[in-house]
Amino acid sequence: MKATYVLDNGVFVKSEGTVIGPLEKEGNLAQYMDLTHDDIYCGEKNWENAEMRMYQQAIRLAMEKGNVTTNDLDAVFGGDLINQNVISHYVLRDFDVPYIGMFGACSTSMETLLTASLLINGGQMKQAIAVTSSHNKATERQYRYPIEYGNKRPDTASFTVTGAGAVLVSKDVSDIRVKSVTIGRVIDAKEKNPYDMGSAMAPAASDTIIRHLNDIGVGPDYYDMIVTGDLSEYGSKVLLDILSDQGYNLQDIHDDCGLMIYSPKQKSTVHAGGSGCACCAVVTYGYLFHLLRTGELNRILVVATGALHNPTMILQKDSMPCIAHAVAFERVNFK
Amino acid sequence: MKATYVLDNGVFVKSEGTVIGPLEKEGNLAQYMDLTHDDIYCGEKNWENAEMRMYQQAIRLAMEKGNVTTNDLDAVFGGDLINQNVISHYVLRDFDVPYIGMFGACSTSMETLLTASLLINGGQMKQAIAVTSSHNKATERQYRYPIEYGNKRPDTASFTVTGAGAVLVSKDVSDIRVKSVTIGRVIDAKEKNPYDMGSAMAPAASDTIIRHLNDIGVGPDYYDMIVTGDLSEYGSKVLLDILSDQGYNLQDIHDDCGLMIYSPKQKSTVHAGGSGCACCAVVTYGYLFHLLRTGELNRILVVATGALHNPTMILQKDSMPCIAHAVAFERVNFK
Repeated sequence: MKATYVLDNGVFVKSEGTVIGPLEKEGNLAQYMDLTHDDIYCGEKNWENAEMRMYQQAIRLAMEKGNVTTNDLDAVFGGDLINQNVISHYVLRDFDVPYIGMFGACSTSMETLLTASLLINGGQMKQAIAVTSSHNKATERQYRYPIEYGNKRPDTASFTVTGAGAVLVSKDVSDIRVKSVTIGRVIDAKEKNPYDMGSAMAPAASDTIIRHLNDIGVGPDYYDMIVTGDLSEYGSKVLLDILSDQGYNLQDIHDDCGLMIYSPKQKSTVHAGGSGCACCAVVTYGYLFHLLRTGELNRILVVATGALHNPTMILQKDSMPCIAHAVAFERVNFK
Repeated sequence: MKATYVLDNGVFVKSEGTVIGPLEKEGNLAQYMDLTHDDIYCGEKNWENAEMRMYQQAIRLAMEKGNVTTNDLDAVFGGDLINQNVISHYVLRDFDVPYIGMFGACSTSMETLLTASLLINGGQMKQAIAVTSSHNKATERQYRYPIEYGNKRPDTASFTVTGAGAVLVSKDVSDIRVKSVTIGRVIDAKEKNPYDMGSAMAPAASDTIIRHLNDIGVGPDYYDMIVTGDLSEYGSKVLLDILSDQGYNLQDIHDDCGLMIYSPKQKSTVHAGGSGCACCAVVTYGYLFHLLRTGELNRILVVATGALHNPTMILQKDSMPCIAHAVAFERVNFK
């Protein structure tokens, strides 16, 4: 069983497209995004269509910035949180391109990216897009309660990010290299509270991080930053505790996309922080890639976590299995 | 844009596991399956758990027959029809193995298999399992109406197969070779009737078949059989018509897994035929692999089709985008 793959043949980030919604525009990282919406409907007639709009814009932006057409793409790897991945499918019907649909809940960003990168490294493909999205209103009503119920959210609840992120990976050399990937395992810590998904996902994140470090043969300080996707406030604490118990100190180098995207003054709305497929996608492709390009970071490990339940399983009193997929990025001119 | 990949480095079917439910046991192909259930609950307390039981059994059977443990597997590629792929995830929490979750609706069998095969051909992986399942009751209540409503089904409606199929693919030479794969595109023929998914999926199937034949540079008679996954009665007619209009005559070599699995005397129950992720999986891995091994078939192309809608999209009056992924299998000693 091999979980970590070092991409020795060269896989690079050619370009990316990042789109966010109105609440995220008021957050910490809006300046690093390609496109921001002032309207939660993004000019569409319902929330699902709004998410499709953002998803499409993210792909188009990545293609424009990378100067490619669909003819230059071997495939699009995409997924989202809405039942049967309909956001991805309804957008992709307007693109004439081979499509692989994936589902990893909020780990979909790194899951799609690692699969595309493995196929490029193996010489099967030359370039491909990995894309995902989430929309706060569309997911809340599907996973929890209709928005109109106005349910009170506990402090441990995270807030689904409205946005979409696409990345174009290629065998063509660029300034950011996809250095290695680690495929996650399904880990069930027997948590049953869908209002505290961070704590449920933390054991999956620690499992993937420890396996990654052991497989590569390095300590945590090999990376300038080890970033989780959407553990947010409570889950991040659980992760650092688990890792500390296992002898890994990530205190100084860990951060979480869910803790980075919103501003402190939004806490009464977002509670524990951001989550959703878009959270890790837009923060990584928008902000972290910027820090790699400007040399503020040289090596990072991005660990996207996903809670793999659905509301029926919660009603049936089952727990929430989780997964975490990891991708390591490196600045190309870094010595 | 490249859609078809010839797997020149050698990818082979090591083993498979096929499990079916009680109605399928009364059908045409029960003798070719590894395990049959007399109880639609499979001894479990609800339909979702029944599907998980079959999914797990399919994986275990493939592993036992292939004489491998999880340590010998590089990854499991899995998916199903239930919201957020929970069947796959809840089973995989009991397997200590890297996992890639995929969604292609009823095309998931060939989607997971083609992705695993591409990664093995590229040298990234040595062996992996592709697995999928469906359960008639679990899907009917999710996609259409609660079973208890007793809605009348029109003749064009297909019947979701209860079963699970897993295949272990490997770089080790065996008696069946995965010869080539074609990744599908999302095709929306603007059909809106979820009681006639076969007709909606037929244009996606024809698109993939024509591209496959053109990419490989052969005519339809290169194959002994071109088998679609679950177009069933009405969709198969539409497919043959579209292909005929384009100059391809598949009349004598086309069959459909949805038309093969049930017996004629079950028509008043299953109407247009079988569908669901398990349909193409158990017919291909159980029956068609048997025909390849015994030399009754030498070369086949399996085209798994999927309707990529969900009930919300139908309520919002949108159409059903579809996809078809193809995998060509060849008997190894065939000259």
